[in-house]
Amino acid sequence: MIKATTKIVAIIGSPIVQVKMPEMLNAALAERNLDVMMIPIDMGRDGIDAFVTVLRNWKNLLGCVVTVPYKQAFMPYMDEVSECSVRLQAVNVIRRNPDGSLAGDIVDGQGFVSALLRNGFDVRGRRAAVIGAGGAGSAIADALCAAGAKALAITDIDDARLDRVEAMLNAKRRQTHVDRHIGALGNYDLVVNATPSGMNGDLSMPLPEDVVQDLRPETFVADVVTVPAITPFLAAAKARGCRIQTGAEMARTQVEIIGSFVGAL
Amino acid sequence: MIKATTKIVAIIGSPIVQVKMPEMLNAALAERNLDVMMIPIDMGRDGIDAFVTVLRNWKNLLGCVVTVPYKQAFMPYMDEVSECSVRLQAVNVIRRNPDGSLAGDIVDGQGFVSALLRNGFDVRGRRAAVIGAGGAGSAIADALCAAGAKALAITDIDDARLDRVEAMLNAKRRQTHVDRHIGALGNYDLVVNATPSGMNGDLSMPLPEDVVQDLRPETFVADVVTVPAITPFLAAAKARGCRIQTGAEMARTQVEIIGSFVGAL
Repeated sequence: MIKATTKIVAIIGSPIVQVKMPEMLNAALAERNLDVMMIPIDMGRDGIDAFVTVLRNWKNLLGCVVTVPYKQAFMPYMDEVSECSVRLQAVNVIRRNPDGSLAGDIVDGQGFVSALLRNGFDVRGRRAAVIGAGGAGSAIADALCAAGAKALAITDIDDARLDRVEAMLNAKRRQTHVDRHIGALGNYDLVVNATPSGMNGDLSMPLPEDVVQDLRPETFVADVVTVPAITPFLAAAKARGCRIQTGAEMARTQVEIIGSFVGAL
Repeated sequence: MIKATTKIVAIIGSPIVQVKMPEMLNAALAERNLDVMMIPIDMGRDGIDAFVTVLRNWKNLLGCVVTVPYKQAFMPYMDEVSECSVRLQAVNVIRRNPDGSLAGDIVDGQGFVSALLRNGFDVRGRRAAVIGAGGAGSAIADALCAAGAKALAITDIDDARLDRVEAMLNAKRRQTHVDRHIGALGNYDLVVNATPSGMNGDLSMPLPEDVVQDLRPETFVADVVTVPAITPFLAAAKARGCRIQTGAEMARTQVEIIGSFVGAL
């Protein structure tokens, strides 16, 4: 139950009713008996500039998670950001420091890689394929490179977007070989769906059926879609004997990273 | 438990940890199984202007209770206000209409008078004395006049403040005779403490001991102080055989009025 003493963590986006994080973080906070609560904020775009001023002056606020469509919009307001935020030009979590200054980071990719490790998959020296170069795909691709992947293939239906992400990945001059084409799936140790395919009853796959049939049982397959937990793509991978990771597993790991970043957990 | 679908009612002030309303309103909301929650916001003064813009654009916010020291500060931003807010130049509750416009009211006095009625005391045609002409005192005095008191005596240690409140009460040209002096307490049907005397372990009375001894058992005595429930003044009134009303009783009635004004209850 919220009291006058309760510290607040917000999650801002529009719409907001579909996000799972308030329930997940609030359950984790309640389990630990902490007087902190996450609240959903559905904010129109005209409120964003003012919301930053409110963040700076909101004394019992620990921080704010940023979701679609505002991950880029908050970037210019931050007093400090992670290297990762600079590369992706986006934040998905903001910590309010006690002096009112704001520190931003984007931990989507970090959450994904932590979940992989938890599931026994270490990407160091391995070959990964990421389908989709949007917000989630670019963050995951960046984190896989940072975690030491030997090769990373990434694709997108939008060529210009793929150009930008490829340039961003190569700018860091890491050891990872970046490729903008996904070959036979048998070539990869990890295949990630970072498109909305399979979301909310959509029956489509992110790749053609015959390509999916190339999956070897040794390949680890992950999806960013959270509802349903087992997308048609993950179901096909399971049927091929692959180990899988759901979007919900990635989200759970992110909740802990975010809770700790803002000082709530 | 707060979820992504939860509608928010805020209470803004600084400091905020001492307010009781979040616990009271949240208990009432939980009892009725409503997916609405009140959250405390401790906001620095530099955030107030931006907070108004945020209010207008915060789509899952029903409204905001305003407490010390901001009841006057929000007044100029309202798109519509009650007559009572105009007289007192203050709001203590803001409703966010679906189009983002903001409606303000001040219901401190209304809550007080409703609690009196609930306790079986109707001020129509009666003589009342209010000690203290600050935010609470002026709101209560105004509501007592509006409810048809025959005579109202009000005092304050600050003459200029008393001048303003007296002028405000007389400007409405009601039937109530307004006096800026409290005579023998035996003359009144209702005596109200609207000063901080007796708050949080303070042992002082709002009037000298010998004046308090003039209370007749027929006089109804009320206090706005919420902690402790029974202030030294209320204890003395009880000892004289008076019926009493605590600050907590007034607060409970206010919670319902506010919950209904913002559309939460």
